[in-house]
Amino acid sequence: MEKGTLFVVSAPSGCGKGTILRPILEASDRIYYSVSATTRQPRSEDVDGVTYRFMTKEGFEALISENGFFEYAKYCDNYYGTPKAPVFEHLENGDDVILEIETQGAFNIKKEMPEAVLIFILPPSLKELRRRLEKRGSENSEVIDKRMSEAAREISLAKDYDYVIINDGIEEAIEDFKTVCRIARLKNNTENIINEVLNNA
Amino acid sequence: MEKGTLFVVSAPSGCGKGTILRPILEASDRIYYSVSATTRQPRSEDVDGVTYRFMTKEGFEALISENGFFEYAKYCDNYYGTPKAPVFEHLENGDDVILEIETQGAFNIKKEMPEAVLIFILPPSLKELRRRLEKRGSENSEVIDKRMSEAAREISLAKDYDYVIINDGIEEAIEDFKTVCRIARLKNNTENIINEVLNNA
Repeated sequence: MEKGTLFVVSAPSGCGKGTILRPILEASDRIYYSVSATTRQPRSEDVDGVTYRFMTKEGFEALISENGFFEYAKYCDNYYGTPKAPVFEHLENGDDVILEIETQGAFNIKKEMPEAVLIFILPPSLKELRRRLEKRGSENSEVIDKRMSEAAREISLAKDYDYVIINDGIEEAIEDFKTVCRIARLKNNTENIINEVLNNA
Repeated sequence: MEKGTLFVVSAPSGCGKGTILRPILEASDRIYYSVSATTRQPRSEDVDGVTYRFMTKEGFEALISENGFFEYAKYCDNYYGTPKAPVFEHLENGDDVILEIETQGAFNIKKEMPEAVLIFILPPSLKELRRRLEKRGSENSEVIDKRMSEAAREISLAKDYDYVIINDGIEEAIEDFKTVCRIARLKNNTENIINEVLNNA
């Protein structure tokens, strides 16, 4: 059976990543969206396995020691991480997987799985990104400045991604993302297809 | 200015290459279809620059000595070849170029221009390819056998192409070809896009 493709998506906050991914995920039940795990207490709006996978601290640390995370971090005494097992299971089942992660995590995954497809989503410009962050009104200018310098640093690493999609218009960006998915299936199937054609003589 | 992309297309006779390329070429005036050159006499149906570029024997041989062809061959005392200059001119102008050539020619071009995109068009199966060739009724079974063994040889080389498109349904195959064109533009623009985003702060 044909394995699925792992799409690793990075984007600075404010790039419209969610708006691009939503229609892609809704259009197919063969794409699994990788959900982060955490040890923080579930809140009322949380759904286990949807917003997060909720784990005990002991369970999380055991999984760390088994090298079971693509990456993890600890904030405010709670762990957050990206577990490998569900990703591998879906790929083996032939599903594609979308995994959101920042640049360093993306490069680590690519090192471990060179067949993963790295996609970076860009804002139209840094200027527009700042405008979007300011429009949200949820952060003070110091936090926004910090986000902006982090965004510039990440964007400068985008050249090492397999594909760069600019969110300069949502329809175009979604179409670009679909194109990347389609091309991955095309590449993925090449060997099988050639053999089938040759063997059906 | 962004350079165009060179798409090098190979396909055994009977794969429906023309049917796939026609709508692609008609849909855009920024795609140039590379026309072969020949020294044979024009026939009544020929249009210079459309069916072939017609050249004198002296002109053709002068161009050979200048390394002006991607490849050339001599049949029945007439030269046939693929001149480089018009391809390069269109690429420089930012047009994409589609060039049909057999496998050895394709690999030679890739060696000279690693940025060229090699596309192989497959029939659904060797069985179906034979059916199509027989249906044409224009060749005897000996010629068809020869074409079939040549097709099998070429198809076994398809794995070294950048993309393999199976013509198992014309709409799907055209969509695949368009996807390859779109992805090439996306890849081609990456560096420019990143710089534009970073510089517009």
